[in-house]
Amino acid sequence: MIKTGLILSGCGYLDGSEIHEAVFSLYFLDKYGAEAICMAPDMNLNVMNHITNKPVPETRNVLIESARIARGKIRNIKDVKASELDAVILPGGFGAAKNLCDFAAKGPQAAPHPEVARLLREMHRLKKPIGAICISPALIACVFKEEPVKPLLTIGTDKQTAEALRKMNARHESHSVREIAVDRENKIVSTPAYMLGERISDVGDGIEKLIREVLSLVRQSAEALR
Amino acid sequence: MIKTGLILSGCGYLDGSEIHEAVFSLYFLDKYGAEAICMAPDMNLNVMNHITNKPVPETRNVLIESARIARGKIRNIKDVKASELDAVILPGGFGAAKNLCDFAAKGPQAAPHPEVARLLREMHRLKKPIGAICISPALIACVFKEEPVKPLLTIGTDKQTAEALRKMNARHESHSVREIAVDRENKIVSTPAYMLGERISDVGDGIEKLIREVLSLVRQSAEALR
Repeated sequence: MIKTGLILSGCGYLDGSEIHEAVFSLYFLDKYGAEAICMAPDMNLNVMNHITNKPVPETRNVLIESARIARGKIRNIKDVKASELDAVILPGGFGAAKNLCDFAAKGPQAAPHPEVARLLREMHRLKKPIGAICISPALIACVFKEEPVKPLLTIGTDKQTAEALRKMNARHESHSVREIAVDRENKIVSTPAYMLGERISDVGDGIEKLIREVLSLVRQSAEALR
Repeated sequence: MIKTGLILSGCGYLDGSEIHEAVFSLYFLDKYGAEAICMAPDMNLNVMNHITNKPVPETRNVLIESARIARGKIRNIKDVKASELDAVILPGGFGAAKNLCDFAAKGPQAAPHPEVARLLREMHRLKKPIGAICISPALIACVFKEEPVKPLLTIGTDKQTAEALRKMNARHESHSVREIAVDRENKIVSTPAYMLGERISDVGDGIEKLIREVLSLVRQSAEALR
C-alpha cells in the first residue's frame, strides 16, 4: 500500500491547517488506495479567534491541535524519514505560512521550519512526489529557493503571491480551483483550493485531482523500477 | 436552494464535533445542491488532549471552536429558527454527547441543551427532516424521550448504547457504517459513521447516503405541497 505523509500545521485555517483541505486529503488518499501518515512539528502556535479573525492571548501546540484532525494518530515530524514514505501531501491554511515557515510575515525572505525543510528535501532527493495545496506552494518555494530546483507551482491567480513565489526562484502557472499544476520533472503537484475556492465542493474536486495525480506519479515510479 | 442547518459542538471528536463527519456534511450538502448554515451553542467545553486522550485544565468556547470548521461563518443557535431551515444535520463526536446534551455522563437520564432541544422540536413539529450522524442519535432520543415520537435510529451495532436509546423511548436498528436508518414517519435519517467506521472513506460513503436521503425527503415535502 502506498504510504503518504500528511504534514499538518494545527487545526483551523487562520492559525493552522485548513480543516476541509486536510480532511479531503485523508478522504481521497483512502478512497484511492493509499495510507495516510499524519505528522506535524512539536511547536507553539499563536491562536486566532475564527469568528472575529483576531489574535487571542493564548498559546496552543501545533502537534497537539493537529491531532484533532488526525483523530490522535499523529507523529512528530522530526521522527519521520523520507525512506518510510512514497509521497507527501501539504494541506494549506495560514498554518502552512505561519508555522511550517514564516512566509505570512516575511514573504520572499521566509525561512522554513528546519524539520519540514529536511523532510521535503529528502523526498525531492529520492524523487518522491509532493502535493501542495492552497498556500503551501509558498512553503515549497521557500524550502527550495537556494537549490537549482525551480519548482513549477500554482497558488491560483493572486498576482502578489505569484510574484513572491517567483522571487524565491519558483515558476508560477495560474490555475482555477478545480485544476492542478503538474511539475513532472520535480514530481510536484499543486492546486489553489481556498486560495480561490468559495465552494467546498470545488475545493474537493481540485484536491481529488491532486491526490490522483500524486498517486499516479508514485505508481509510475514503481513501474519504472520493475 | 435548500437551506440546511449544521449543528456543531466544537472542533475535535473527543470534546467537540467529529471533524471528518462535519466536513463530509458540508461537502455533500454543497455537492447535492443545498446551502449549509452552521450554528453552535455559546457555552464552555472541557478540553481534551487528542494525543493522550486525557482532559487538560483549559476551557474553550463551543461556538468559537466550531467556527474553525465553519471557516468563520457560524451563528449562535439561540438565534436560529426552524422556519428559516428546510432540514438539520447533526455530526457526531463526543461534543454531541457532552455539550449538546449530557448523554456521555448520564446515559438515559441525559438532558439536552435547551436551545438545541428547542430547534429540534420545532423542526419535528414542522415535519422537516433531521439527519443524525454517529453518536448524535443519542441526542435525538434524549430530546424526544418525553414526547410520543419514538424515533427509529441507528448508532451501529453497540448493544449498550442501543439499549440506552431504547430506555429513552427510541427504536434502534443495527446498521453497518455504509448504511443509513430511515424513519419515514418522523423524517429522521441516521448513520453510524465513526461509531463503527475505521476507514474514512466508509464514513464518507455513509454520510453521503444520509445527506442524499435528507435532501430527498425535503424535495418530497416540497412536491407534496404543490
